[in-house]
Amino acid sequence: MTTFHQPVDAAEVPRFAGHSTFMRLPAVPTAEGLDIALIGIPWDGGTTNRAGARHGPREVRNQSSLMRAAHHASGIAPFSIAHVADVGDLPVNPINLLDGLKLIETGMAQIAATGALPLSCGGDHLTTLPVLRALAKSGPVGLIHFDAHSDTNDSYFGDNPFTHGTPFRRAIEEGLLDPHRIVQIGIRGSVYEPGEHDWAKAQGIRIIYMEEFVRRGVAEVMAEVHSIVGDRATYVTFDVDSIDPSMAPGTGTPEIGGFTTREAQQMVRLLAGVNIIGADVVEVAPPFDLAGMTALVGATMMFELLCVMADLVDRRR
Amino acid sequence: MTTFHQPVDAAEVPRFAGHSTFMRLPAVPTAEGLDIALIGIPWDGGTTNRAGARHGPREVRNQSSLMRAAHHASGIAPFSIAHVADVGDLPVNPINLLDGLKLIETGMAQIAATGALPLSCGGDHLTTLPVLRALAKSGPVGLIHFDAHSDTNDSYFGDNPFTHGTPFRRAIEEGLLDPHRIVQIGIRGSVYEPGEHDWAKAQGIRIIYMEEFVRRGVAEVMAEVHSIVGDRATYVTFDVDSIDPSMAPGTGTPEIGGFTTREAQQMVRLLAGVNIIGADVVEVAPPFDLAGMTALVGATMMFELLCVMADLVDRRR
Amino acid sequence: MTTFHQPVDAAEVPRFAGHSTFMRLPAVPTAEGLDIALIGIPWDGGTTNRAGARHGPREVRNQSSLMRAAHHASGIAPFSIAHVADVGDLPVNPINLLDGLKLIETGMAQIAATGALPLSCGGDHLTTLPVLRALAKSGPVGLIHFDAHSDTNDSYFGDNPFTHGTPFRRAIEEGLLDPHRIVQIGIRGSVYEPGEHDWAKAQGIRIIYMEEFVRRGVAEVMAEVHSIVGDRATYVTFDVDSIDPSMAPGTGTPEIGGFTTREAQQMVRLLAGVNIIGADVVEVAPPFDLAGMTALVGATMMFELLCVMADLVDRRR
Amino acid sequence: MTTFHQPVDAAEVPRFAGHSTFMRLPAVPTAEGLDIALIGIPWDGGTTNRAGARHGPREVRNQSSLMRAAHHASGIAPFSIAHVADVGDLPVNPINLLDGLKLIETGMAQIAATGALPLSCGGDHLTTLPVLRALAKSGPVGLIHFDAHSDTNDSYFGDNPFTHGTPFRRAIEEGLLDPHRIVQIGIRGSVYEPGEHDWAKAQGIRIIYMEEFVRRGVAEVMAEVHSIVGDRATYVTFDVDSIDPSMAPGTGTPEIGGFTTREAQQMVRLLAGVNIIGADVVEVAPPFDLAGMTALVGATMMFELLCVMADLVDRRR
Amino acid sequence: MTTFHQPVDAAEVPRFAGHSTFMRLPAVPTAEGLDIALIGIPWDGGTTNRAGARHGPREVRNQSSLMRAAHHASGIAPFSIAHVADVGDLPVNPINLLDGLKLIETGMAQIAATGALPLSCGGDHLTTLPVLRALAKSGPVGLIHFDAHSDTNDSYFGDNPFTHGTPFRRAIEEGLLDPHRIVQIGIRGSVYEPGEHDWAKAQGIRIIYMEEFVRRGVAEVMAEVHSIVGDRATYVTFDVDSIDPSMAPGTGTPEIGGFTTREAQQMVRLLAGVNIIGADVVEVAPPFDLAGMTALVGATMMFELLCVMADLVDRRR
Amino acid sequence: MTTFHQPVDAAEVPRFAGHSTFMRLPAVPTAEGLDIALIGIPWDGGTTNRAGARHGPREVRNQSSLMRAAHHASGIAPFSIAHVADVGDLPVNPINLLDGLKLIETGMAQIAATGALPLSCGGDHLTTLPVLRALAKSGPVGLIHFDAHSDTNDSYFGDNPFTHGTPFRRAIEEGLLDPHRIVQIGIRGSVYEPGEHDWAKAQGIRIIYMEEFVRRGVAEVMAEVHSIVGDRATYVTFDVDSIDPSMAPGTGTPEIGGFTTREAQQMVRLLAGVNIIGADVVEVAPPFDLAGMTALVGATMMFELLCVMADLVDRRR
Repeated sequence: MTTFHQPVDAAEVPRFAGHSTFMRLPAVPTAEGLDIALIGIPWDGGTTNRAGARHGPREVRNQSSLMRAAHHASGIAPFSIAHVADVGDLPVNPINLLDGLKLIETGMAQIAATGALPLSCGGDHLTTLPVLRALAKSGPVGLIHFDAHSDTNDSYFGDNPFTHGTPFRRAIEEGLLDPHRIVQIGIRGSVYEPGEHDWAKAQGIRIIYMEEFVRRGVAEVMAEVHSIVGDRATYVTFDVDSIDPSMAPGTGTPEIGGFTTREAQQMVRLLAGVNIIGADVVEVAPPFDLAGMTALVGATMMFELLCVMADLVDRRR
Repeated sequence: MTTFHQPVDAAEVPRFAGHSTFMRLPAVPTAEGLDIALIGIPWDGGTTNRAGARHGPREVRNQSSLMRAAHHASGIAPFSIAHVADVGDLPVNPINLLDGLKLIETGMAQIAATGALPLSCGGDHLTTLPVLRALAKSGPVGLIHFDAHSDTNDSYFGDNPFTHGTPFRRAIEEGLLDPHRIVQIGIRGSVYEPGEHDWAKAQGIRIIYMEEFVRRGVAEVMAEVHSIVGDRATYVTFDVDSIDPSMAPGTGTPEIGGFTTREAQQMVRLLAGVNIIGADVVEVAPPFDLAGMTALVGATMMFELLCVMADLVDRRR
Repeated sequence: MTTFHQPVDAAEVPRFAGHSTFMRLPAVPTAEGLDIALIGIPWDGGTTNRAGARHGPREVRNQSSLMRAAHHASGIAPFSIAHVADVGDLPVNPINLLDGLKLIETGMAQIAATGALPLSCGGDHLTTLPVLRALAKSGPVGLIHFDAHSDTNDSYFGDNPFTHGTPFRRAIEEGLLDPHRIVQIGIRGSVYEPGEHDWAKAQGIRIIYMEEFVRRGVAEVMAEVHSIVGDRATYVTFDVDSIDPSMAPGTGTPEIGGFTTREAQQMVRLLAGVNIIGADVVEVAPPFDLAGMTALVGATMMFELLCVMADLVDRRR
Repeated sequence: MTTFHQPVDAAEVPRFAGHSTFMRLPAVPTAEGLDIALIGIPWDGGTTNRAGARHGPREVRNQSSLMRAAHHASGIAPFSIAHVADVGDLPVNPINLLDGLKLIETGMAQIAATGALPLSCGGDHLTTLPVLRALAKSGPVGLIHFDAHSDTNDSYFGDNPFTHGTPFRRAIEEGLLDPHRIVQIGIRGSVYEPGEHDWAKAQGIRIIYMEEFVRRGVAEVMAEVHSIVGDRATYVTFDVDSIDPSMAPGTGTPEIGGFTTREAQQMVRLLAGVNIIGADVVEVAPPFDLAGMTALVGATMMFELLCVMADLVDRRR
Repeated sequence: MTTFHQPVDAAEVPRFAGHSTFMRLPAVPTAEGLDIALIGIPWDGGTTNRAGARHGPREVRNQSSLMRAAHHASGIAPFSIAHVADVGDLPVNPINLLDGLKLIETGMAQIAATGALPLSCGGDHLTTLPVLRALAKSGPVGLIHFDAHSDTNDSYFGDNPFTHGTPFRRAIEEGLLDPHRIVQIGIRGSVYEPGEHDWAKAQGIRIIYMEEFVRRGVAEVMAEVHSIVGDRATYVTFDVDSIDPSMAPGTGTPEIGGFTTREAQQMVRLLAGVNIIGADVVEVAPPFDLAGMTALVGATMMFELLCVMADLVDRRR
Repeated sequence: MTTFHQPVDAAEVPRFAGHSTFMRLPAVPTAEGLDIALIGIPWDGGTTNRAGARHGPREVRNQSSLMRAAHHASGIAPFSIAHVADVGDLPVNPINLLDGLKLIETGMAQIAATGALPLSCGGDHLTTLPVLRALAKSGPVGLIHFDAHSDTNDSYFGDNPFTHGTPFRRAIEEGLLDPHRIVQIGIRGSVYEPGEHDWAKAQGIRIIYMEEFVRRGVAEVMAEVHSIVGDRATYVTFDVDSIDPSMAPGTGTPEIGGFTTREAQQMVRLLAGVNIIGADVVEVAPPFDLAGMTALVGATMMFELLCVMADLVDRRR
């Protein structure tokens, strides 16, 4: 592979034309030869209330046709410095939770085996668990986690251990994450009980509630994030419900008082320097979306993550 | 119980006021003493494409506030001749398919044990399977099935036997339905293969495709329905996707060319005389609905079924 | 006035341009010199459930920009045979029911005094009462009434006599309508009690329920309508909820199983020959509408009525 | 009453299941024994433009199913320290303004007589007038008023004194409010005339316009609020149009440039220490809402108010 | 090419997964080797009022994921008897009308050169003009035209000859169509003047207005259609606004009183035997659509046309 | 003209009543005698992706019925100090780009000739080019440009020089704008290439990216704006996509991370003192809007601009 995949140019082919892929990149059958693989994970089998994130990848692809080739602030032109393409959707099973988890893990493991960094689009937040199972083969990794919810609950509806409210508890139990290298930012909204986050804190997870974020500001918070994850392998997971529901209404568990997109963009840009082994944007639920607004946020946050990751690839080369 | 439950009167309390229950009836904790129990089954664990029927009961209850106390054409005043109330929702499990099936069966069995006829609101069409398990304890029953789809496929996504495309195959295999006393009306839409319905027909199921329905008309079709099910125990299941998507867009698997609501109302009214042991309206999926239109169709079809069932109760008394 | 007002031509000025008036006609300050006055009555003070018809005139005007200058089936070119214009909205009072009724009556009386035939756009169905008060000065008139509801109830919420469920009872009591020259077509939907329509029938009102309409067909029904109203003065009132909710969702009290627009258009065209003294289209409620669909139905039904009325004007000249 | 009412637990019964009540609490027939009564007031009889707040309580109840049992920032678990339940909707009259006012006052007086603190959900802002009539029996009270509008106009449409633009002028005239203990925060949007607020200011009302709020910030403004109302009886009224229309589009009189929900949440949390005798959230108008967004804001602001009020109850015990 | 392209099977890969193509078929770079090419023409440069059909192909592709592999009524399995695939979108120019026409003609000519029958998805109705220019190289062809409008006007906005209201006048003038072999079905809606269709009729076009269609019925009308076009080369064009706006609201020029989808499906099935050289479905305008309803109608009508065309291919083989 | 045109008073005629004009002002046939002319330019012929701004003026007029007579913060009562009215829409041509540009220029020139300051509502951003052609007759003017995009690209789709992405490059080339007196504020979103803005900067345009705006704040940025444009003739153009998509979703090219309406209002108020020769609000695209939200932003920003312009008129008098 000697030339870089380029997105279709909107000054030649209008944005509404052509097949819909992530960032208008070519759809390729495999991640072989890619630096960064854009992946859909259309699965919401862990959703306890409003399902719909299964439709996320299609609509995020659709809205991503509004992306262009370079970043206006950082100047990064990701498609000129990294091999990037759309590798399609992982296999899923919408009616069988355990099979769904297994299919996603297997599919992601095949991509990881090529050496490409995965940047995926969910899907509900339970999809991050099988992704971590595929990526954290050589030991627990760090996690930068943007979300309204800690997602470290224990079980639901009797003793069901796998829901989109539990992935990070399971990931810690399974040795996929190093809890002292986990930071959660934007946590807010009513809780099941005052001590709901005690387990997470006891493990060593650093929870930065929205109130603290507002008080300290982006720069200070992100400095702490860097100090927590250091320079070892770190996964970045961006739950779109971290954003305020006015900007991202299409999600399963909205909580008012969220990040503005400006704040989210600033934070993601400040991930530069983190040793990112993969990233995802999850919980875009089109059936609850308005005019594609949330899918556009999802697509843009993927573009922001892509720029940071492409820069990382470029610096390492 | 000596007096009948009455709905809240909209000439006294406006329709937008008060808690939302089916037909503005009292919410009661048990079916004891009822002739007909109105039940929600908020579960769509069997949905292979667009989930959302889990939200059906709440929105059907909401739109059912437009119902009044008597039927304008038949003159039946169901709440004056039968004890009817809203017994709430059955327990469900949104993330565990097998537990979901079990919970619904158990919940429905408790209602059936009281002698009340169940009139339930799904939920996806897989909910009808555990309902039949609870009701067909003394042998296979007949089925009058309004739908765009036969729902007699074998399995999905590998070997998963339980989806909303398979309930009636499973019910026949489990001895819950007598295939020679099954009639399916309104079947249409593209099929997986030309022989998709061969198994069903081989069992003895009578499929009346939309084209035959249009050709023969309501009266002739319903006469045949009566001759098929006879006077033995029969369950009635009404999938809202039998109705045209312009009238019922809020459903998971729309197929154009469907019944008009007029036709559906005429057919349900002609169920008078059938030995109905229970009925349901399923596949109302509010996240895909427009302005409550589909939920209103669902609520009205429940009211139409209720009038026929109340009349049956009254005649037997 | 020697030349006829012409609508703006969409082949010269696109439909989305220019101020929004009924049928793109000039807005004029008075009905003086007009044969037919197009009028808005933005008032829903009688609405017992879902208000919103107050916004009807504005959206019907908006959608009426899709109308053109001649009728494709009858060949009638209303603007070439009658003086027609948009005289604006009558004064209303959204928070004072009795003042609202009075303002509408006064406003309509001023228009009637000019000799112009009023074709108005509501507003809820209670608006027809003050309109009749203004028009039926010389004795009771006949009524052709398209609706899902008889609107002849007695009172609501205690002893409140004026709601959109009572106008025709009040109009009969006040001697504005001759009950033996009233015909209601399309009545359907559940009723408060089996005898809800007994009073109306006892007065002599002919109710043609939807079921009878379906059985007998447009031609036969409309022949009976002519025989009922004869050649004396008759008002025509078209409640958009007579149309099926799939075609007219934007209304306060939808009832499934309604007229198709085709049927409604056929019926209105067969009003040719009736001695129409005025007409209205009511209960278009934009806050509940979808994509202007109901307002388009309202605008088109106004155009259909206008063609019949212009033809009447032309024949009399 | 020895145990506290608890909301249905979403880890046991999913949020979409069960009857819809405020915060998933039990629906109880009376406020007897409650510390705080959650109440619906489905009435918008005073609305001068876009009606729809009559539908507010139902949709706020619906969205309140997203609330959980404790506050993530303050740690307050309201249902464990106060007796709280949903007492249903007050009687209303949608077509008779004066009767509506009387019914609301009477209904609220019955609740107040039990000693429970009312936390109600409107309804338009005129509903606050009869609520104050019921609560301010022993003399004028203070008012903390979040709103885009001062609502102290004199009359509309002739001499109609009661609209949602006039309640606080009437309340002052009736001796229900002490104008020197009224503070209005967030006022903005164009005005009828430059001196529109002169009367209010002359009475002693402190108006904090949005511009001053932005300049001074939440902490300083809320400190002044406390100094204005002091420790005497104070009512809190939260008009959802104080929030920006992007976050709360479903309201009758939107004005751009509003509070963010973050700011609103911060302000309500800083009400701790105020002697609250009752509170309301008004002007949620579902027909103009998008995806339940405004109703979710309404439900969350009710939860925020509830936490402050429950803490007050707990401290007094 | 020895094996047929097959759509992705929804019993293996759920409908919401994978890239979106027409009928879930492979996206191929060229029509070489195909019997039937599915093509998008995302262009609405001729739209005089509500633009948006440029977005049609993407949304029709999206909704076509609901199609399956065989026709339930005819038994035709198009993908097993014809080589069919999605060849992508033709090049277009959204801001230059004449360049747009040229690009479409050139693109379609390349496809036609391969011998594949084109089945395209517009785009507004002006797209049919360059398609005919590409297909009618050897002399005028016949036209079966389903539409609410005749589209044979002369010019707009001064002397602009090319709009979506003029394509068939231009095509006749250019010798692309034989006017005596043109039949237009479903024409309705108000007209610019009583004689608007005189030119078309004078050329020999047979216009079957909606009223005649309703009177005579599908079978009789379609028999006449066959007699008009005979067995010579014929193009089929299906304007989605021929369908009633309740079923197809997402279109630029809706006219009430349209075809039901049932009627449309019956008519298209009765095209069997016509010598179809190409077909299109046009005027699906997603920005005006509701819940994908119109795109689903468009996708299903494409599937109906595909079955007839595949059968034609198969019979000729 | 001795008295000022006044808007209809909403305390007398409710906001939903009456014909829809900008700010409820009289519709007048000419700008003669006006100080400020409110104008619609319903044209989006330059739109490269999502058309719809052609519908902008109608919906902005509709939402402007929420405006009142005075500014709450500045105290300016524009209708009492300046002659203002709605002069209707300029002629346009939706299917012919060059004719469209010419018609707009001619129409605007006629208004300019009266001496009235134009305040127009687009339409897409290409409309500003013919407006500048009409206004900058005596030499290049300055420009204050609020936008997410620089709109200084060169050409699209081959060599097409006129799109809504190119107006200000053309205007500089044509000598209509002095590039050293151009300031663009709010620029953001991905770019076609890292050097996309090099040409603009080389001309002397000052681009204040969103990041710089956030860092420096409104006051500092607006001080620089004043220093750039000085006291010579300056045009103000406000693209609604400068606002965040959560507040203004109804636009063709949304970019997340935009201005809040608060910020935009603050900036426009700080235009006091600028020598404004005309202004516009563009790119409101109703087909993509939600609940009129964007049109309300557009109407309010027009009101904000109007107050500044009326004050300018008043000070000069």
